[in-house]
Amino acid sequence: MVRVTVWNENRHEQKNPVVKEIYPEGIHGTISAFLEEEGFPTRTATLDQEEHGLTEEVLQETDVLVWWGHLAHDEVKDEIVAKVKERVLDGMGLIVLHSGHFSKIFKTLMGTSCDLKWREADDKERLWVVEPSHPITEGISEFIELEREEMYGEHFDIPAPDELIFTSWFEGGEVFRSGCTYKRGNGKVFYFRPGHETYPTYYNKEIQRVIKNAVQWAKPVDRKRPVYGNAKPLERIAVKK
Amino acid sequence: MVRVTVWNENRHEQKNPVVKEIYPEGIHGTISAFLEEEGFPTRTATLDQEEHGLTEEVLQETDVLVWWGHLAHDEVKDEIVAKVKERVLDGMGLIVLHSGHFSKIFKTLMGTSCDLKWREADDKERLWVVEPSHPITEGISEFIELEREEMYGEHFDIPAPDELIFTSWFEGGEVFRSGCTYKRGNGKVFYFRPGHETYPTYYNKEIQRVIKNAVQWAKPVDRKRPVYGNAKPLERIAVKK
Amino acid sequence: MVRVTVWNENRHEQKNPVVKEIYPEGIHGTISAFLEEEGFPTRTATLDQEEHGLTEEVLQETDVLVWWGHLAHDEVKDEIVAKVKERVLDGMGLIVLHSGHFSKIFKTLMGTSCDLKWREADDKERLWVVEPSHPITEGISEFIELEREEMYGEHFDIPAPDELIFTSWFEGGEVFRSGCTYKRGNGKVFYFRPGHETYPTYYNKEIQRVIKNAVQWAKPVDRKRPVYGNAKPLERIAVKK
Amino acid sequence: MVRVTVWNENRHEQKNPVVKEIYPEGIHGTISAFLEEEGFPTRTATLDQEEHGLTEEVLQETDVLVWWGHLAHDEVKDEIVAKVKERVLDGMGLIVLHSGHFSKIFKTLMGTSCDLKWREADDKERLWVVEPSHPITEGISEFIELEREEMYGEHFDIPAPDELIFTSWFEGGEVFRSGCTYKRGNGKVFYFRPGHETYPTYYNKEIQRVIKNAVQWAKPVDRKRPVYGNAKPLERIAVKK
Repeated sequence: MVRVTVWNENRHEQKNPVVKEIYPEGIHGTISAFLEEEGFPTRTATLDQEEHGLTEEVLQETDVLVWWGHLAHDEVKDEIVAKVKERVLDGMGLIVLHSGHFSKIFKTLMGTSCDLKWREADDKERLWVVEPSHPITEGISEFIELEREEMYGEHFDIPAPDELIFTSWFEGGEVFRSGCTYKRGNGKVFYFRPGHETYPTYYNKEIQRVIKNAVQWAKPVDRKRPVYGNAKPLERIAVKK
Repeated sequence: MVRVTVWNENRHEQKNPVVKEIYPEGIHGTISAFLEEEGFPTRTATLDQEEHGLTEEVLQETDVLVWWGHLAHDEVKDEIVAKVKERVLDGMGLIVLHSGHFSKIFKTLMGTSCDLKWREADDKERLWVVEPSHPITEGISEFIELEREEMYGEHFDIPAPDELIFTSWFEGGEVFRSGCTYKRGNGKVFYFRPGHETYPTYYNKEIQRVIKNAVQWAKPVDRKRPVYGNAKPLERIAVKK
Repeated sequence: MVRVTVWNENRHEQKNPVVKEIYPEGIHGTISAFLEEEGFPTRTATLDQEEHGLTEEVLQETDVLVWWGHLAHDEVKDEIVAKVKERVLDGMGLIVLHSGHFSKIFKTLMGTSCDLKWREADDKERLWVVEPSHPITEGISEFIELEREEMYGEHFDIPAPDELIFTSWFEGGEVFRSGCTYKRGNGKVFYFRPGHETYPTYYNKEIQRVIKNAVQWAKPVDRKRPVYGNAKPLERIAVKK
Repeated sequence: MVRVTVWNENRHEQKNPVVKEIYPEGIHGTISAFLEEEGFPTRTATLDQEEHGLTEEVLQETDVLVWWGHLAHDEVKDEIVAKVKERVLDGMGLIVLHSGHFSKIFKTLMGTSCDLKWREADDKERLWVVEPSHPITEGISEFIELEREEMYGEHFDIPAPDELIFTSWFEGGEVFRSGCTYKRGNGKVFYFRPGHETYPTYYNKEIQRVIKNAVQWAKPVDRKRPVYGNAKPLERIAVKK
């Protein structure tokens, strides 16, 4: 049983009627609904809640955290980011979606600028599977086609992913590493590109399947955490003169 | 439900009373017993069976193949190796144990000599976990200690593993990358170092746990296989003059 | 001083007047000319020469081998492939171009089928740099554009590259990992996609620059080779009872 | 010509007569001397200089920065760390030595805690080469042996290195990933473990050789930097209804 929290900035939904119409319950509402349906006990949290909905208790009860943010990355408090990071290093899975590439939590875990090219122009996107042995691709065809999406293009300033799962083709001539896994401490991170707020991307069944697979993949490993600091020798050390 | 086949050369057990005493049912017998106990439907296959016990039917019904060989790598027929390789590329998991580093199947999947340093001298071995987020380490402490093992030392002539899970310390002064994952085609490969035939290594509960975890990790992904060869365009290609 | 040998199958040039016109001195002639111009002492070797021009002496005097083949992969003798592989594992660099993805030497070093999608339809190709810190990209812009090329598409059945340098966009809707590095033993391998025989790709200055950079990158490291086999302990091993 | 700046905290040298005796010109003095001798134009910078000696001008004229710190990581100003990080992402090489694993600059580039086990007990250390094809190993034997060093042990909380070059064996029973490369943006990072201040490690010729090799490897690539942000399409995008 993997307990999920879906975090959403939830601002576009308040400001932009187009977004509100596509996601009347918010992007978090749509994502949590299909994860709940899959059998994951799922809750949501949003920016404007106290502590952004990510209290110590919520974080401790979260196995995998899904993150969507865009307009208000800067409003996310540094102490909350620090807590989320600590939880990831302690084993919590993290799935960063779309414009979350520029979130504080993703940037601090990557160590790079996470910058990229972008364009809102109804590009067709085709996400090709380049790592067919990976459980995140279960049930997915050779590619996922999205009729319209925002374009994200290389160079994407991330560390080389531990595993590159998807690479996107865009109609306007660009490519993008759009499904990337990372391990950080005891935790696992998956970045997944699609999901611009003005398109119904999170209703796409294959996109949903990838996120469900990723939740399963990102769940914490059940073991004692490593011990750090001063360590007694396990073997006798010769006295040297 | 992951269906396992444990393949063993089964020669030391016939020739060497020390080995026979430790593994009266053969190394394959011991390994299949603890996998069966874990709930994996498990069968065994050995070198001297027809087609080495790896008929087309057996391979098709195997989700994860465990491989132990040493004395008789050369007696494994090339056509069987080719079939096993094809199954791995098609999605079957492969767990290569100890002296299997020099098996035909491991060498052909790696593309390198897979050579190493070795010594039979009752070295103490300590396998340190270096990737604590990996499911193969579930339930494992910071290290596994084996009172006596054969030493394998660097340089180990393998491609850099996709994931390095364990690194061994040896009493005689060497280190070794002793738990390594690879992806090949649609299949996953795990090399795990311990298990010299004259030591009761496969009775060690933590060693068993690692192999059980690896079986779970290596199971095939359920999806259609990629299509290769001549491909029609998905988009219109401009006529150029 | 890096000594280069450019190997070419040299068959299309004999059979197809289009290819002959583009590469009157053969593909090997064009490639060796720009490498020589760069200051690398360069020779050529072709399939129809004795031992395919790759005698023991030639291989010993080769620091980096460039490989182009297509029609006649099967005619390359296994014993020559074995010698080339041994030299790579011993430190010789290997640059595999375009249809060389299906050469015996590349497949044996990769351990996978190396299969892919393809199409000859005058696709435009755009190779995007995804690893800007790598010396192979020196002097290269954000992308290299080729007006017409053969399409190669994912899934490309290779092990995940140690470093992914270029990813291609194709007009017809596909993507491809088109610049990939691997380490094998003491040697380095670079696969570089472009170079279909009916297009003047190897006259493109940026393509030439990548190949020159790759030669420099792939040169052998000057050190003693690792020692394998039985090894005396470096530390005292306790006698255990 | 690679221009190097060796940065040293330079505090142990002032406080501890043992360190002062070993490194009368400071650790930075010893390191810069052997780099200068190798032909690299080298300057030094220390914590107590204005802007820690790392002014905008110095950073702009630095191709590779070597970093040694321990006692006073917290005294390094955040704005200087930010500038150094920006330079790394822009292409400057960074070589982090020993206790620099806990420096702000290393931690921010890694995104993890960078914690580890440690012990000051005159352990013997043996650094084994595990990637013999890498230029950082040029001229190095199978291992480097240090009679006495501080122990650093796994788990080392770093992202899996892009390339693992050295793994250390310690007398007291531990192992450690002691030579690790990373790419970040346009820059390259090498972490190298040895160099506790109370041992004469930086006089060891093989240790010096590794650092010289690393400087050469880490030098910036000469190319235009990627462009980020809003991007016009390179191909026509169909109007969709």
